[in-house]
Amino acid sequence: MVDTFRYDNLFSEKSVDTPLNPALHAKYDFAVAYPAPETLPMDGLIQALQTAVDSDSEKVLTEMAYYPHQLGALELREYTANKLAAERGFTVSPDEIALTNGSGEALGLVIQALTNPGDVVLAEEFVYMGTTNQLRRFGADIRGVAIDDGGIVPETLDEQIKALTAKGEKPKYLYTIPEHQNPVGSTLSSERRKAILEIAHRHSMPILEDDCYVDLRFKGETQPAFRALDDSGIVVYVASYSKLLAPGLRLGYFTASTELMRRALSFKLGSGPNQFASIAIEGYLRSNIESHRNNFNPMLQSKCDSMVAALQKHFGDSGATWSEPEGGCYVWLMMPNGSDISSIRDQVFEQGVGYVAGPAFEADGSGRIGKNCARLCFAFESVEKNAEGIALLAQLFKQHGAM
Amino acid sequence: MVDTFRYDNLFSEKSVDTPLNPALHAKYDFAVAYPAPETLPMDGLIQALQTAVDSDSEKVLTEMAYYPHQLGALELREYTANKLAAERGFTVSPDEIALTNGSGEALGLVIQALTNPGDVVLAEEFVYMGTTNQLRRFGADIRGVAIDDGGIVPETLDEQIKALTAKGEKPKYLYTIPEHQNPVGSTLSSERRKAILEIAHRHSMPILEDDCYVDLRFKGETQPAFRALDDSGIVVYVASYSKLLAPGLRLGYFTASTELMRRALSFKLGSGPNQFASIAIEGYLRSNIESHRNNFNPMLQSKCDSMVAALQKHFGDSGATWSEPEGGCYVWLMMPNGSDISSIRDQVFEQGVGYVAGPAFEADGSGRIGKNCARLCFAFESVEKNAEGIALLAQLFKQHGAM
Repeated sequence: MVDTFRYDNLFSEKSVDTPLNPALHAKYDFAVAYPAPETLPMDGLIQALQTAVDSDSEKVLTEMAYYPHQLGALELREYTANKLAAERGFTVSPDEIALTNGSGEALGLVIQALTNPGDVVLAEEFVYMGTTNQLRRFGADIRGVAIDDGGIVPETLDEQIKALTAKGEKPKYLYTIPEHQNPVGSTLSSERRKAILEIAHRHSMPILEDDCYVDLRFKGETQPAFRALDDSGIVVYVASYSKLLAPGLRLGYFTASTELMRRALSFKLGSGPNQFASIAIEGYLRSNIESHRNNFNPMLQSKCDSMVAALQKHFGDSGATWSEPEGGCYVWLMMPNGSDISSIRDQVFEQGVGYVAGPAFEADGSGRIGKNCARLCFAFESVEKNAEGIALLAQLFKQHGAM
Repeated sequence: MVDTFRYDNLFSEKSVDTPLNPALHAKYDFAVAYPAPETLPMDGLIQALQTAVDSDSEKVLTEMAYYPHQLGALELREYTANKLAAERGFTVSPDEIALTNGSGEALGLVIQALTNPGDVVLAEEFVYMGTTNQLRRFGADIRGVAIDDGGIVPETLDEQIKALTAKGEKPKYLYTIPEHQNPVGSTLSSERRKAILEIAHRHSMPILEDDCYVDLRFKGETQPAFRALDDSGIVVYVASYSKLLAPGLRLGYFTASTELMRRALSFKLGSGPNQFASIAIEGYLRSNIESHRNNFNPMLQSKCDSMVAALQKHFGDSGATWSEPEGGCYVWLMMPNGSDISSIRDQVFEQGVGYVAGPAFEADGSGRIGKNCARLCFAFESVEKNAEGIALLAQLFKQHGAM
């Protein structure tokens, strides 16, 4: 490409010249957001495809030959409906589920259906930046909701909504990750969820529930989904097979009230997600979900234990605190107030340890509260590398005067 | 879902309550837009996945575990770059190719990067409605460019651009399907392409080239891509593996000038397309593209021949004319001027024959020129069903007074 043609005035006003993210990985990569490669059941997924072809070749070929239905592959929607009924305690029909290219597409579609530029949207004060990036892109004015070790505090949320409403800034909806929150790792109790639902109804404020980590619990009790506690349509439920199986499959899903689903889906660029991965996922999980989780989650736990033990050993005297996850992928590290591990992130990366610094997760993007924090993914590296990497991290923080 | 919660004022202004398309199929389904299920190499794709795992399991697992690069899987981009160099006569690096969820996503991203609401955009007067739907959604004011049996007539195009420019309606860009045009089936000659490029440069008007059907030629000569005739960046090139292999794989791609690619990709909802299908496609095509095409395209031709012969037999005396395709998936049927096969489409569908009536393809959406036309997909049904279906179609047209 010579690029002599000048586009100058031809780009749309909405387009932004955005650099492509190079996928760089540190030696100890705690910056990622996915499970370890060795847990991925590639052979099982391939076997599931072969079994599907062997048992009804014509059916598989027809599914592959047609452009996928906008909701995605029927069999995987049926499987998902059964999974939600059995494990998340709510009943929806397969036609009330839309499969998407990862949960990122689901979130983007729902956000577009609900957000006008300038709308105030609430989210945990530290929250998944993939969502806040999309919220900002579609014009949301995001405000962080204060959290404690148990997640959102209902009383504080209610006060914040009242104060905002009084200022003419009534929040449009609440985005939350109630189970193994990304990045802080907390799980909202059933009682808090019920209280938050009461508040949401009182303020006519939908809840966009992101349940992407629910399959990754290795300790404690899974709490009922917001969606299981409320059948009115006020809850939009989003989840994914990326964490349970593999991000590379790009399969997420959502369910919402009927008209909201139709409006959200109208923003799609094309048809439903790929049938090839859908057939493999459905076939594999139908026979293997229990054994997969029984194998996978204890492995996650031993990796988590290794990282937490290393933090205790190397950061125990530093004044730092950290979350002790019951599942998910992340430990949230908080250095003492005033310390700044955000500005040294690139240097520490170069020296071998990757992490995502707190400011990336600040809902309001203010940079006020996250500089002393970092998200450490324990799910990707091995038990040994988790221990070694945390030891090196402590050494590097000391070298850079951060502890 | 009970749907008691009322969203009334909560939907975004941009959202539209759009019905989901039910996937209905007539007994003789000439309304579809894809090859026959029996041509899909499912076993070959599964084998390619297994071979990839067997030869380097760690590599495959790592690719699946990571969120895909925004450009998509490197190996399939490398394969695609080699394919374009060998078959389409232009050289781009793998980093100048973005894989997408079908070509629909590619087109949607590029359209968003180039279109402000109200922009005038040109396209063949009959053209793929998936693109015109997206163009309209992002605010384009589409004007149809007159075509003859050889596609766009350069002189007419130039006059149209001058006339529009004089009215203050200068076209922003041209969308075209130069090879086996959908729906009319024409292929632009090399001479016309060169003339159109000269016109495009003179008016600083990019060309959005949709080359989705290029692999499906069974007769005649493939013409050089616009992109092969021009390296300046004025051509955006979009293509797909949906037609060559299977729509259910959802794998398309595009290449454009550097900044335009970055701006287009900034509209993505999430990361690159699924690695699972990418690994299968790359592995399968690397070893089998020649044998696949050698098997597939003659089958396409016999289906096409069967439909064209049946048209000759049953429509020969009707005053109708039709295209005689050299590839692609479609015959374009034109009943005599004044006849209306659009208004009877639903009835004919109920009686057993599906087709897409002309108005769906009208670029300007005016409904002025397409009522006597229909797109008939010859690629999906068998040789026998193509013959039977056309016989029934003639019978039904007579019954409804359309011939």
